[in-house]
Amino acid sequence: VIEAERLARVRLSAAVEPGHADVLRAVAESSAQAVLDRLRRGDPRLDRDGRLGRRVLAVDAAALLTLAERYGISVTIPGDPTWPPGLDDLAGCVRDRRGEVPVCLWARGSASPLLLQRSAALVGSRAATAYGTAVAGDWAAVLADRGVAVVSGAAYGVDAAAHRGALAVGGVTVAVLAGGLDQPYPRGNATLLDRIAADGLLLSEAAPGSVVNRGRFLSRNRLIAALARGTVVVEAGRRSGALSTAAWAAALLRPVAGVPGPVTSATSVGPMRLVRDQVAVLVTTPEEVVELVGDFGADLAPLSAAPSRATDGLPEPLLVVREAMPSRSPMTVAELVAATGYDLPTVLRALDGLAERGLVAGHGETWRVRAPRRVDA
Amino acid sequence: VIEAERLARVRLSAAVEPGHADVLRAVAESSAQAVLDRLRRGDPRLDRDGRLGRRVLAVDAAALLTLAERYGISVTIPGDPTWPPGLDDLAGCVRDRRGEVPVCLWARGSASPLLLQRSAALVGSRAATAYGTAVAGDWAAVLADRGVAVVSGAAYGVDAAAHRGALAVGGVTVAVLAGGLDQPYPRGNATLLDRIAADGLLLSEAAPGSVVNRGRFLSRNRLIAALARGTVVVEAGRRSGALSTAAWAAALLRPVAGVPGPVTSATSVGPMRLVRDQVAVLVTTPEEVVELVGDFGADLAPLSAAPSRATDGLPEPLLVVREAMPSRSPMTVAELVAATGYDLPTVLRALDGLAERGLVAGHGETWRVRAPRRVDA
Repeated sequence: VIEAERLARVRLSAAVEPGHADVLRAVAESSAQAVLDRLRRGDPRLDRDGRLGRRVLAVDAAALLTLAERYGISVTIPGDPTWPPGLDDLAGCVRDRRGEVPVCLWARGSASPLLLQRSAALVGSRAATAYGTAVAGDWAAVLADRGVAVVSGAAYGVDAAAHRGALAVGGVTVAVLAGGLDQPYPRGNATLLDRIAADGLLLSEAAPGSVVNRGRFLSRNRLIAALARGTVVVEAGRRSGALSTAAWAAALLRPVAGVPGPVTSATSVGPMRLVRDQVAVLVTTPEEVVELVGDFGADLAPLSAAPSRATDGLPEPLLVVREAMPSRSPMTVAELVAATGYDLPTVLRALDGLAERGLVAGHGETWRVRAPRRVDA
Repeated sequence: VIEAERLARVRLSAAVEPGHADVLRAVAESSAQAVLDRLRRGDPRLDRDGRLGRRVLAVDAAALLTLAERYGISVTIPGDPTWPPGLDDLAGCVRDRRGEVPVCLWARGSASPLLLQRSAALVGSRAATAYGTAVAGDWAAVLADRGVAVVSGAAYGVDAAAHRGALAVGGVTVAVLAGGLDQPYPRGNATLLDRIAADGLLLSEAAPGSVVNRGRFLSRNRLIAALARGTVVVEAGRRSGALSTAAWAAALLRPVAGVPGPVTSATSVGPMRLVRDQVAVLVTTPEEVVELVGDFGADLAPLSAAPSRATDGLPEPLLVVREAMPSRSPMTVAELVAATGYDLPTVLRALDGLAERGLVAGHGETWRVRAPRRVDA
């Protein structure tokens, strides 16, 4: 029974566009076999003109699976132990006619889809700046090192940098493609895609042989959002596809984060707009991303305490007296009274307190500091 | 009676540090004359050892006013028409022993303190980057041009850039100093301070003759926060004094904003931390600052709509078909069916719709686009 359902889903996968939400929803609500029957009977609610039915019936599912096998591509369907549970959140989550749970997921690679339980999508512009690709690469390396799978779309720019950063530290990275997994896209990243398959995972809802088209790119973005536990927009122009991924993640109630960048940078407009609109939270370190997508309590980012200084926690008169003293030359008590505005007893008490803590040295009228001071930024 | 109170406040201003919140609060709750009487009688609740009383009684208020006049410095006290109302919000707002309403405000310059009704503080690091000073200068110019007085502290870096940006467009800028207005500080900005006095305003709670000290810098920050309608942190390291200004503004329930910058920049750590901690909102344009500090409804920032494109608002099938067409070469209907995944009738209807809108041209099998396409960022 499960094998019959698998073949039915393979057949639909090769013939139904992900934008065809009616069919996908019907599959999710009943089964691929039931939908195949309806298409065979020519149900006009799913297939107004009969074309879809003819396309579906022309698919040779067994041949497709043989072709897939030749490329090391396997297929997983809901109910399989390898079916990523995040995808089920798409049920009923239709935006702009795309959406719904894919009928199946094609996979190529060595990593288990279950690693997506602990994952973050790093997405952004193809036309990324050096800053954007540096952040994507560096953060992906930290995330992968902390056992977080790095999900992206294998495009030029931010996507490729994120995959490479994870691969560089031997971590897991997952590329979600718009076309079939036998069709490397973009062609210029074919070598990268092979490396991702070797150490990580390539995923697509498009059957082998499917070429990319714009509709499939838009649909692919929903899969990135649904597969990852959270989505980070590293850099994105006003029109970047990364913003659609962020919108999907928000619709799925997954955490969305934006990386700050200069207000003068066109590719930081997108993430900053998401933060201003309270779609995304601001993240400034990869540790904050780990906290965002990590397990409750177990993955808290370190509090970004200022580096500790010898003067930390000093009561105010001690701090003010200490700060009033130059680092290299001595100072008289009278000068300290003038410089701090405190009266003499307060200055003397503060000097005693500082001397007890080893922060100043001196006696009588003349005192000097004992540790180097930091200059305020 | 008012003149006697003014002289009493002048006298206190020259002898009491702003950190002496007990005295400042007593003045706010009764009057400077009453506090002078208590100091004269040696009230130990205000003056444990009698030193403050002796300092106050040694002040020659009339001579101080004569000195001030020589420098073009005037004094304003609560109740004067020129008293900035924002300062009264400090009543009872004591943080770290500083705070409280100043006993008086010394002023030098041509602008009225009432212009602070429409104002924004731009503050930040002395050790600003080129990005920080560029943003401070550019935004100050836009704010000043929109009639918003630019408040800052005349320090090197962000402060000086903000003052200069406002002056460059003939706008109003207000520098709040830690020492007396006859003591230009920092010395290297003496010319800038003279220009601010000529076109704008210098303010301080320190009497003429007072030199700067660290305590006075900390106290000065509360005045910047209280005088401006909102505070924008442009760049600030973890330890920057600008963060204390932001904390004062937050304590006063004034809007606080942070300017994004690269996560790799140490001087953007401060504002990004404020945004993460929800002390500050993120601002990416000076117009957003105008909205933040401006009048309800009258100063809304323009919605940052994406630049309009010929394809804006197209229904999805039209958009997808249009986006599938290359900009220079024609495409056949069969190719469009393959590229979009739509069936033939949908593609034909979409082509008709696009042709009606003047976005494609063609007939029968072969079509091409009519307007240049924008590439996704």
